[in-house]
Amino acid sequence: MKKFSKKLNVQLIAEVFKAYGIEHIVLSPGSRNGALSTHFTHHPDFKTYSIVDERSAGFVALGMAQQLQKPVVVCCTSGSALVNYYPAVTEAFYQNVPLILLSADRPIHLVDNFDGQTIRQKDALSLHSYHNTQLDEDESTETLMDNLNLIKKAIISCFQNSGPIHINMPFSEPLYEFQESLDIQFDEFNASTESKDKIEIDYEELAEKWNNSSKKLVLVGMQFPNEELNDWMEKLAEDDSVILMTETTSNLHSKRFFNKIDSVIYSMEEMELENLRPEILLTIGQNVVSKKVKSFIRNHQPEFHWHLDPYWHPDTFQCLTNKIKSESLAFLKNFVPKIQSQNSTYYTNWNSIRIEKETKQKEFAEITRFSDFKAIEKLIETFPENSQVQYSNSSVIRYAQLFDHRKDVEIFCNRGTSGIDGCTSTAAGASLVNHKQTILVTGDISFFYDSNGLWNNYIPSNFRIILINNGGGNIFKIIPGPDQSGVVESVFETRHHLKANHLAAMYGFDYVEIQSMEKLTEELSKFYIESGKPKIMEINTSDIQNAEIMREYFKI
Amino acid sequence: MKKFSKKLNVQLIAEVFKAYGIEHIVLSPGSRNGALSTHFTHHPDFKTYSIVDERSAGFVALGMAQQLQKPVVVCCTSGSALVNYYPAVTEAFYQNVPLILLSADRPIHLVDNFDGQTIRQKDALSLHSYHNTQLDEDESTETLMDNLNLIKKAIISCFQNSGPIHINMPFSEPLYEFQESLDIQFDEFNASTESKDKIEIDYEELAEKWNNSSKKLVLVGMQFPNEELNDWMEKLAEDDSVILMTETTSNLHSKRFFNKIDSVIYSMEEMELENLRPEILLTIGQNVVSKKVKSFIRNHQPEFHWHLDPYWHPDTFQCLTNKIKSESLAFLKNFVPKIQSQNSTYYTNWNSIRIEKETKQKEFAEITRFSDFKAIEKLIETFPENSQVQYSNSSVIRYAQLFDHRKDVEIFCNRGTSGIDGCTSTAAGASLVNHKQTILVTGDISFFYDSNGLWNNYIPSNFRIILINNGGGNIFKIIPGPDQSGVVESVFETRHHLKANHLAAMYGFDYVEIQSMEKLTEELSKFYIESGKPKIMEINTSDIQNAEIMREYFKI
Repeated sequence: MKKFSKKLNVQLIAEVFKAYGIEHIVLSPGSRNGALSTHFTHHPDFKTYSIVDERSAGFVALGMAQQLQKPVVVCCTSGSALVNYYPAVTEAFYQNVPLILLSADRPIHLVDNFDGQTIRQKDALSLHSYHNTQLDEDESTETLMDNLNLIKKAIISCFQNSGPIHINMPFSEPLYEFQESLDIQFDEFNASTESKDKIEIDYEELAEKWNNSSKKLVLVGMQFPNEELNDWMEKLAEDDSVILMTETTSNLHSKRFFNKIDSVIYSMEEMELENLRPEILLTIGQNVVSKKVKSFIRNHQPEFHWHLDPYWHPDTFQCLTNKIKSESLAFLKNFVPKIQSQNSTYYTNWNSIRIEKETKQKEFAEITRFSDFKAIEKLIETFPENSQVQYSNSSVIRYAQLFDHRKDVEIFCNRGTSGIDGCTSTAAGASLVNHKQTILVTGDISFFYDSNGLWNNYIPSNFRIILINNGGGNIFKIIPGPDQSGVVESVFETRHHLKANHLAAMYGFDYVEIQSMEKLTEELSKFYIESGKPKIMEINTSDIQNAEIMREYFKI
Repeated sequence: MKKFSKKLNVQLIAEVFKAYGIEHIVLSPGSRNGALSTHFTHHPDFKTYSIVDERSAGFVALGMAQQLQKPVVVCCTSGSALVNYYPAVTEAFYQNVPLILLSADRPIHLVDNFDGQTIRQKDALSLHSYHNTQLDEDESTETLMDNLNLIKKAIISCFQNSGPIHINMPFSEPLYEFQESLDIQFDEFNASTESKDKIEIDYEELAEKWNNSSKKLVLVGMQFPNEELNDWMEKLAEDDSVILMTETTSNLHSKRFFNKIDSVIYSMEEMELENLRPEILLTIGQNVVSKKVKSFIRNHQPEFHWHLDPYWHPDTFQCLTNKIKSESLAFLKNFVPKIQSQNSTYYTNWNSIRIEKETKQKEFAEITRFSDFKAIEKLIETFPENSQVQYSNSSVIRYAQLFDHRKDVEIFCNRGTSGIDGCTSTAAGASLVNHKQTILVTGDISFFYDSNGLWNNYIPSNFRIILINNGGGNIFKIIPGPDQSGVVESVFETRHHLKANHLAAMYGFDYVEIQSMEKLTEELSKFYIESGKPKIMEINTSDIQNAEIMREYFKI
């Protein structure tokens, strides 16, 4: 028997979500949101997921929305529940993932009046959300119309900004009155989310500048995999005056692209870098992982820096000159036909360095023993076909940038804020909707931090976690500085003896531990095979001098 | 060798903390806060604790500050780290626990410019903090003086409001330059935190009203244990026209007090309640747990409602008439000498109901079998002498309110927001500084939610956790409503088969599981004895109809 809420505002918001094609709702248990969670669960047009820890629930929804590229709802009860979403909200804000935060609240006159589970929910996350609104719980036709407009505005903002928005809904008792049918349904609904503002881009002027330069650097950060985009990027890069550098998270692949930025730049002399200074820098996509390329550009600034993005135009290198507000694909389709390839030694100069470094890296890898470096090299060689890899912050994604990835393997990493707080939950969320085998490759601090990410009844059995456990935050031994503090192990690395076997047993994951290259090779040959349970592979390198190996690598 | 930071602003803030007697710093690992964490760790006047998960770190600091009754600092790196403090900040805001949030930030021109781990930190938690400031990283004498004033203002606000404040500190590289001595030290420092505003209270007028009424109800919520206060409260209650109701969290004890509110009120008829309606209601202390007393007062409002509190004057019952801004002890010392006891049947009327209910509860308890109810009754009888009990939200504290507690056992519970998000971490924090044996009594959902609370290297070996595991959020089976939803187990209760044995093994706790009254009695006889490790006792009642027993109880 259906149990739809008698509350008209609950019916209203559900029907508006439905009209906009929003169908996934991540619920956390609570009484105040009971009308909402019961209504969504019984409603045939929604798929609901119950995740207890709101911090994890926020990231699960983020992982889902990241993959679906449309809004996912996270719904919680009143009180501090809401503010547990904040870490995921900051990530969604900067990664431009559309999230709808739907919080149930007590009647607003109880705020600051010491009622149970009551905080200032309205605008609590407004510094990192694109729209914040609060509905009126009155059920008169007039108020319902007002609420409809508030909800539409919020959803349109979510689509247009591709980011988090917050709707707060106060509820008086009774919370638990249900009926079998709906009083509110829409026959017609204008669910358009298009912006009326058209942005004019002067392609001719940009092309003229481009065609007059013999040193152009294109740097592509995090972006969603897209084959057509890849093709246009290849056309853009078929030019000796163009270097196209890709981050691992850009999901771009071509022999022409420079896809291991760090390994090319790391040991270059100032003089050499200055010679390679671009005249035009075109940045595309989101946050760049590579510190070395950031430092290269900041110290060798181009004359022009164009940033192409529909949402953000950050002045990452303190030399931004043009904000190109557009989807990448739309821009390239207009721009590429207007450009002419130039005679230039720019590509050859960069490429000769790359070839030299690749040979050295190969030699280095051959003589390097079992370690984080070798393990990640091996993992990347053996990811299953058409799989999706979610890398955690922060050492792991940095290691990953040193190796080539196959085109059929999709890469994601939470680089909006580069936090370690929700990498596991995000990967779990992605696995629920991406129709791919999903593999989380994570470091130990990230993994134990977000261990509640495993508390999720929906994780598919083909989900895989590869945990590189070096016994602490190894990043603090790799970056220079903390070694000078005298307290690197206790304060920075936070050395521990934790292992994942207990969590695996607790949450029903298969588990295998690896302590050698031979065992790794052997286990990887069967690790991805379909199984009854998801699996964790723990690669234990806690006795290995991983930081020293990295320092050696950066000396070659 | 000492490693003091060369950064003068780091030296400055540490010396100001020292001047105000602030000595405990909870650090979470990170690079941007590396200068701060190294400096505090090497500084002889501070005691530092490294807690990886900032959400847990926030509650650990809250538990410490709650016990010390003076500010504790939590310090994190840049990015989403800060917003993981938000749940603890809301709790501290409403529980009035003094917390200093100290976040390291990137140089401010990098905010919104896609630098790594960069969000809008300034004011990010301002809706629930009493003061928010950002220092300037310049090191000129003038700027240092300005920063000194900003820091002093923030700390004074923390003391005066007894609540969270936030200081954001941007840092440019180099972060890791150290020296053996301090450049900044204060010879003299005015560390006064007294407010100049004196609040005048008209004791004569209040006493006159009091003395003219024959029905006065005093309701005491959460407050810190204080023997002198207890004595004054007893004097206040030595009067037949006065009923003094205490919550378990009030830490008040007297035969005269009504200390099991729910068990007295639950089954009274409207008529009976109306007859017991007070003329004057005096509320003292913080949030009240008992829903029944809240509903009683809201439905039978007094003519006058006085709320006595130095910080908050919430209109919890929608009939607040007097805001008495004072510490309880100071008020009672002035007020009690002015009152005269009245001839009244008010006390006798209430007391006859109490006696009747106590007899019934005794009979009920005798025939009730092993269950949450019986287990908690047994626990309360056997808490060790002079121990401190931290109850979790939400079923557990409600059960606890049904039983008498001994005077030598201190009780705490996070009722500022009544969240389940940090009960374990708070108890762990309290255990670090309270010089008592600390016992966390928790439900399963709270316990698994905050499992990172166990990831804490400082927990003393006499710390005890008693986990009542009924296999889900049993509160949703006790409160009326969710049983009507058709999805009570999946959406509300979130039934699970998790047990604590794996977490115990992972984090180095001894572990025992209990499934009968006999085993419980036997194990309790040795559970509190000094041991090499902290211990978890898991009382498994997942096969018991606990909610039905509670419904039976409320029918007696």
